[in-house]
Amino acid sequence: MSGRPSGEFGLIEWIRGRRPRLGPDQGVEGDIGDDCATVRFRDTAAIVTTDMLMDGRHFLLDRDGPEAAGYKAMGVNISDIAAMCGSPRFAVVAVALPRGEAEAIGRGLDAGLRRMADRFGVALVGGDTNAWDGPLVVSVTMMGDPHPLGSPSRAGARVGDVILVTGPLGGSLLRGRHLRPEPRIREAQAIRPALNPTAMIDLSDGLSSDLGHILDESGGLGAVLDESAIPVHADAVALAAEDGVSPVMHALNDGEDFELCFTVPPEAASRLVPGVTLHRVGEIVAEPGICLRAADGRATPLRRGGFDHFRRGR
Amino acid sequence: MSGRPSGEFGLIEWIRGRRPRLGPDQGVEGDIGDDCATVRFRDTAAIVTTDMLMDGRHFLLDRDGPEAAGYKAMGVNISDIAAMCGSPRFAVVAVALPRGEAEAIGRGLDAGLRRMADRFGVALVGGDTNAWDGPLVVSVTMMGDPHPLGSPSRAGARVGDVILVTGPLGGSLLRGRHLRPEPRIREAQAIRPALNPTAMIDLSDGLSSDLGHILDESGGLGAVLDESAIPVHADAVALAAEDGVSPVMHALNDGEDFELCFTVPPEAASRLVPGVTLHRVGEIVAEPGICLRAADGRATPLRRGGFDHFRRGR
Repeated sequence: MSGRPSGEFGLIEWIRGRRPRLGPDQGVEGDIGDDCATVRFRDTAAIVTTDMLMDGRHFLLDRDGPEAAGYKAMGVNISDIAAMCGSPRFAVVAVALPRGEAEAIGRGLDAGLRRMADRFGVALVGGDTNAWDGPLVVSVTMMGDPHPLGSPSRAGARVGDVILVTGPLGGSLLRGRHLRPEPRIREAQAIRPALNPTAMIDLSDGLSSDLGHILDESGGLGAVLDESAIPVHADAVALAAEDGVSPVMHALNDGEDFELCFTVPPEAASRLVPGVTLHRVGEIVAEPGICLRAADGRATPLRRGGFDHFRRGR
Repeated sequence: MSGRPSGEFGLIEWIRGRRPRLGPDQGVEGDIGDDCATVRFRDTAAIVTTDMLMDGRHFLLDRDGPEAAGYKAMGVNISDIAAMCGSPRFAVVAVALPRGEAEAIGRGLDAGLRRMADRFGVALVGGDTNAWDGPLVVSVTMMGDPHPLGSPSRAGARVGDVILVTGPLGGSLLRGRHLRPEPRIREAQAIRPALNPTAMIDLSDGLSSDLGHILDESGGLGAVLDESAIPVHADAVALAAEDGVSPVMHALNDGEDFELCFTVPPEAASRLVPGVTLHRVGEIVAEPGICLRAADGRATPLRRGGFDHFRRGR
């Protein structure tokens, strides 16, 4: 990777030029111009995640600009670290830049990447820059320290567990909130020791899809969600007024909220976590599938309809 | 990342289905369907590198097929680990797959990625799959253990050091050798204790460019290369017969040989490394720039002309 300032410029050059103080204090050893970066974790165990964002799919370069793309690309990866209750530490970034505008786009991207990285103390330790005739692609790999008490998986939910989320959901596309993830690192690190969650995920695809992953991974369980308990974002209400889909369906299906969804045993569900707002949205049941329970007690099956990377357009 | 089998399929599903035995023996903990993979290094220090390959730039999907793209993508990253004398351990892969053919291309890609990974004992611990209307993009991030004696940087070359390479160079495009990197992991791990190299790099951009990186990083040094000592690959000779460029210029400039280039103090240069063929190609000098010394002793300046990711077409 890195250290190949091919052609006009190299992302690694800015990283190096602008962050000259990367060193042992940030857990970075050696020279970041080398073929690999050398990083140091707290323990021999580390957590790692990768997410790739493409123009037209996860952002619109013409409308949103490269800085927004970089900010989001770094943020969604940090959000995955949050879902493990970990501490984000190091990132590497690979980009395919549209030729001709490569330098301007690269600089904007870099600014966005670093703005998010700096918020969470993430060291950008390496990269690979390419130019081509295709659209902008940015791929971030994030490494971190696991929580000392262990990482909640997606596979640990049990029948009777209560399902909670960390914030209001839905309508993230309306005002560009999907470009500004707020990774719940602080919240996750407070939740982990306080509630010992049995399963956790970050809400990127939408509650119905992402909760579905927990249910699948936990052995084919089901969930009953209380319609009146779903925290509906103001954006979902506004979007509903435009498109006629109900606010709660936006909250359940829209995705890219980047809140946490997790399960805890019932005895833990009423415990407070200082400084963290939690919404209790339902419980795990043995019968597979997700049902939505109305105020009158009637439960109707919910089709998974979250964000689908394979769906055409945004 | 991972665990989002959005739409038709998920790379992570194959990884999981086909490599069910990933576990503590491979340094992998927890469930690879989680938001992050949990990996365990030998020490708290780790090395990390990333390289992104794009259709039309690093391979031609129509001509080479997806398996070749995957094989190369994994190989070039392992080659970066070799340049640090490290041990490759874990990889994550993010892909943008052309819609419509996404599943077939994804499966071919996965086969190639795993074929190279398996050769070097690399565990594919996570991924992010996307489909779009653009060309195939595959981004690999590789993590590994550093060599216990330390990683040679690019910045340690000194005046008087001898420059060596591990194999013949040039013409890698002619017969598709650029698609089949042979990462010099074994060689690097033998060289590290035997010769204690002062600087090392893998030859991806071409000897003139990559040696140039060592010279720049080492404080603006120069090099004199002996024309008759440059190991010229048979492909370079064959290509020269076609295009009229001399074989040695192909060897110096073509790139994507993925041999190692490194420097050692003169007293180490004549030591043998059991099982490793080494070619002594020149020495480090104080005068910046690279000169090519002919058999008659005349030295002419060499323009850096290696592979440039920003150059149009392949």
